[in-house]
Amino acid sequence: MTEAPSASQVRVNRDRLWRTLMELKEIGGYADEATGLRGVRRLSLTDEDAQARRRVVAWMEEAGLQVRVDRIGNVYGSRAGSDPSLPCVLMGSHIDTVATGGAFDGTLGVLGGIEVIRTLNEHNVATRRTIEVGFFTEEEGVRFGTDMLGSAVTSGRLTLGYAFALADDHGATVAEELVRIGFDGDAHERRPVPYAYIECHIEQGPILAAAGVDIGIVTGVQSISWQRLDLRGEAAHAGTTPIEHRADAGLAAAIVIVEVRRMCDSGDFGRLRGTIGKFALQPSQTNVIPASASLTIDLRNPDDDAMTAAEAHLQAFIDTLPDRCGVTGTLHRMAKTAVVPFDVDVQKLLGDTADDLGLGYVATMSGAGHDAQEIAAICPTAMVFVAGEHGGISHTPREYSTPTACGNGIDVLANAIIRLANQ
Amino acid sequence: MTEAPSASQVRVNRDRLWRTLMELKEIGGYADEATGLRGVRRLSLTDEDAQARRRVVAWMEEAGLQVRVDRIGNVYGSRAGSDPSLPCVLMGSHIDTVATGGAFDGTLGVLGGIEVIRTLNEHNVATRRTIEVGFFTEEEGVRFGTDMLGSAVTSGRLTLGYAFALADDHGATVAEELVRIGFDGDAHERRPVPYAYIECHIEQGPILAAAGVDIGIVTGVQSISWQRLDLRGEAAHAGTTPIEHRADAGLAAAIVIVEVRRMCDSGDFGRLRGTIGKFALQPSQTNVIPASASLTIDLRNPDDDAMTAAEAHLQAFIDTLPDRCGVTGTLHRMAKTAVVPFDVDVQKLLGDTADDLGLGYVATMSGAGHDAQEIAAICPTAMVFVAGEHGGISHTPREYSTPTACGNGIDVLANAIIRLANQ
Repeated sequence: MTEAPSASQVRVNRDRLWRTLMELKEIGGYADEATGLRGVRRLSLTDEDAQARRRVVAWMEEAGLQVRVDRIGNVYGSRAGSDPSLPCVLMGSHIDTVATGGAFDGTLGVLGGIEVIRTLNEHNVATRRTIEVGFFTEEEGVRFGTDMLGSAVTSGRLTLGYAFALADDHGATVAEELVRIGFDGDAHERRPVPYAYIECHIEQGPILAAAGVDIGIVTGVQSISWQRLDLRGEAAHAGTTPIEHRADAGLAAAIVIVEVRRMCDSGDFGRLRGTIGKFALQPSQTNVIPASASLTIDLRNPDDDAMTAAEAHLQAFIDTLPDRCGVTGTLHRMAKTAVVPFDVDVQKLLGDTADDLGLGYVATMSGAGHDAQEIAAICPTAMVFVAGEHGGISHTPREYSTPTACGNGIDVLANAIIRLANQ
Repeated sequence: MTEAPSASQVRVNRDRLWRTLMELKEIGGYADEATGLRGVRRLSLTDEDAQARRRVVAWMEEAGLQVRVDRIGNVYGSRAGSDPSLPCVLMGSHIDTVATGGAFDGTLGVLGGIEVIRTLNEHNVATRRTIEVGFFTEEEGVRFGTDMLGSAVTSGRLTLGYAFALADDHGATVAEELVRIGFDGDAHERRPVPYAYIECHIEQGPILAAAGVDIGIVTGVQSISWQRLDLRGEAAHAGTTPIEHRADAGLAAAIVIVEVRRMCDSGDFGRLRGTIGKFALQPSQTNVIPASASLTIDLRNPDDDAMTAAEAHLQAFIDTLPDRCGVTGTLHRMAKTAVVPFDVDVQKLLGDTADDLGLGYVATMSGAGHDAQEIAAICPTAMVFVAGEHGGISHTPREYSTPTACGNGIDVLANAIIRLANQ
């Protein structure tokens, strides 16, 4: 990949971008009790997601994009280049949210991509390569249990059959829900390989704000491990069962939760982050010692070896539970991704673009998983991060990035995409 | 209360008692996955409870009892004495179960009471006082959150209005459910004060078996404290939020669970038993740090002062959570009962009766709550415990007492009731 002749810098319409972000936020909007704010709940392939998909497709079509839907429900809008025989440049992200989400996670990269197209149209910018904007199905993994689903299928890590068979807590499958909401497209799920992919996304962390910049050039995504821990003890009466006779599955779960935190605090496993997000007890009665517990363990690590060591320690710790409290535990793998390094040339092009725009930036590793980690398997890929307020908190209605930060991020995206599309 | 002239000892029909226990167990019967056994799930005022109520009422009527239902759904069957002006002697318990229950908890005292009546009928035993057998609504507290509900209303500790307004997890109230299942009786909920009350119940603990006896004479019920702990942290992204920035409500819950166990193990609070039976996280997603957690804390103590100290320590510990992990906690009182000592004269009469039957027994305090602790507020009360197998485990399908142990317990009940009914 060589540098394209430097083009004069374009700027996107920040107000228009902001208006679309605020409009999409109302689809799946809800009053969040914990924060007193208005949040977004738009789980993948729900009615709310379907409504948002139709709204985004309409915006794509208004921007002159040729829209197609693939068999896993990924949606692409295409703006033809002067040489249609060349691989396209792709930008995008996702529009599904967690149950207590905000207006920016994922949507900034998608609505920003459409804003890039509008800006190219207004400035009559023609490009050599076709440019595409896409959004991927079930990035969050909240509803069907596997995150990056659409991008993992398109990159070939997961099969369409695997994805179709995934079911939500009520037994509805991905295949059924795609048909139900009318996004069971006919484009092949293994998309044509792009020339390059750039995803603009909120940082979801405090590093950019601490450095006093709006922009991060992402060097890669840390390793992510999702496991479910099933614990089996024995139900018994809370009042009459002596402490030393108990096999309390809830206590075992608590001991594991405390240990995961200790592992993070210890430094023994590098910059390990561990989270227990889901936790259920059975039979779930005030006066019955829990017979079983099930919890999810989300581990993140920027170093693959440290992650391997953390997982081994966790397994060894769980093996001590029978001695500690008479409870047996079994770990089930939900998902695992190794550290994904991003393409250094695309990173350099993004840094040069930010420099030319006069925008400060830092290089940073992503703590969160992103569709870009999947697309990186098929083409040169990198990401642009946009700073968030409140320490970059996300997955909560408090998630917020300023119009200026969003506009700066999408300006970098726009100009980098133009350069790539003219290579 | 003075000793009645000694009557010759009667013996109940053990086979008939056992058949009714096994028959009632099928109402609400289910295949328990954790144990591979058949369990009983008969939560109060459900369809299963209604079916069991109708079955027990039919048995009462077949035994010649005059049946009445009161406004909180307590059911009494009455066998007239020769002097109807005297207060009756009452026996009974409950027939509702926990979600993973067995065949004996509560039902032994009710079906045993009916077997006592059948035995009196067969032996043409007339008594001076009327004898009644009763069962009380929602003893377990599993469905509507307040245990001993029917007996607490009849003894006046709780009002009918309070009880009527309690709702289950789906919003169905006690008042609605009583009407729905047809057990909204018209007898006054504050029943006529009995001369004495005896409840026969499985021990639900290992003490009788360890002493090599089938029978326990219960000296009282330990103090019981039920509290709900609500924890408030902040939702945030599992991958991007640095450990030191987190306010993880699930971690706070785990720290509390571990501390409750440490309190029990320490001996600092006497023979404290603590159980966390219910535990829910929000928003309950694999990759979101929990914003809030809610759990129940069930504490038991045979000493009121030690219970007070345990509750004070727990509150103080919860007050340290903001410093420990940035999470605030609030305790909400669900229920609290002080130690209830049983009537020494009724205990002595039970012991004498066991002696006359040639049955060994030990005096013991109850670890579980029972309707008897409520009825003790209005009349002289005591309990007969029957030993259980497997360390007396209960609130699980493994709960089991042998036909011999059950028969011995109900023999003690029968002869003690005859003596009281002739005083």
